[in-house]
Amino acid sequence: MELTFHTDYGLRVLMFAGAHRDRRVTMREVAMAYAISLEHLRKVVHRLAQSGFLATTKGRAGGLRLARPAEEIRVGDVVLAMEDSLAIVDCSRQPCPLCGGCSLKGVFESARQAFVDRLNEFTLADLLHNADTFGELQRLGQPA
Amino acid sequence: MELTFHTDYGLRVLMFAGAHRDRRVTMREVAMAYAISLEHLRKVVHRLAQSGFLATTKGRAGGLRLARPAEEIRVGDVVLAMEDSLAIVDCSRQPCPLCGGCSLKGVFESARQAFVDRLNEFTLADLLHNADTFGELQRLGQPA
Repeated sequence: MELTFHTDYGLRVLMFAGAHRDRRVTMREVAMAYAISLEHLRKVVHRLAQSGFLATTKGRAGGLRLARPAEEIRVGDVVLAMEDSLAIVDCSRQPCPLCGGCSLKGVFESARQAFVDRLNEFTLADLLHNADTFGELQRLGQPA
Repeated sequence: MELTFHTDYGLRVLMFAGAHRDRRVTMREVAMAYAISLEHLRKVVHRLAQSGFLATTKGRAGGLRLARPAEEIRVGDVVLAMEDSLAIVDCSRQPCPLCGGCSLKGVFESARQAFVDRLNEFTLADLLHNADTFGELQRLGQPA
């Protein structure tokens, strides 16, 4: 039931940007803070920008910042935007004879919705509310 | 967020046994019904028996049957028993500097619980309540 690398780091990138709201953060410092490759990070940032969570600016003074207040970014929405699929079971992986009228599908769809609903009770601001997390994110920032 | 093959088929095996409560079903007919290998099925059945969902009998007249009434088998409990881990994010995969006081972990733990709680609102009996599913499961049975 694990989320993808993209989702996981998508949230961490937003947390990083949210902990440095006073300035643009650079790709380089985010990559260094989390010890991930710039190549991976670029894909994550691209998706976050496409989905309206991050605003990116190119050029020498460029970088990333939140496109919306942290209070308005819900965790479940980020997960939905980052995951290609939140299907719990892949009914096409093995052609299953029950496919047509299977009752399992509806049960998992309901549980998936409960999962996303619970995540959406939290915003990025909530994630940053934890003083330890916020402090560590601030410490990790290395403005050029 | 996909569940493992084991969980997916664990539920399907229980549904099959539940649709043929009047007799023991054989490994062979379950494997044929779902077009999966006996080898895979054996692992699934072993885990289900270990977890108290299935009773297995060896020998010529042997086979599988539900170890408890379908009304008492909750879907979330089956998922928990079959999945090795229901962790949503693997914090050790990439050593994350936030690990100590990370607020993300608690949020995902809460969502994971909401997922399992919702699944536990359904029993195996609910899955079998659907006439199409039940009929198809019965049709698939091929007693020797």
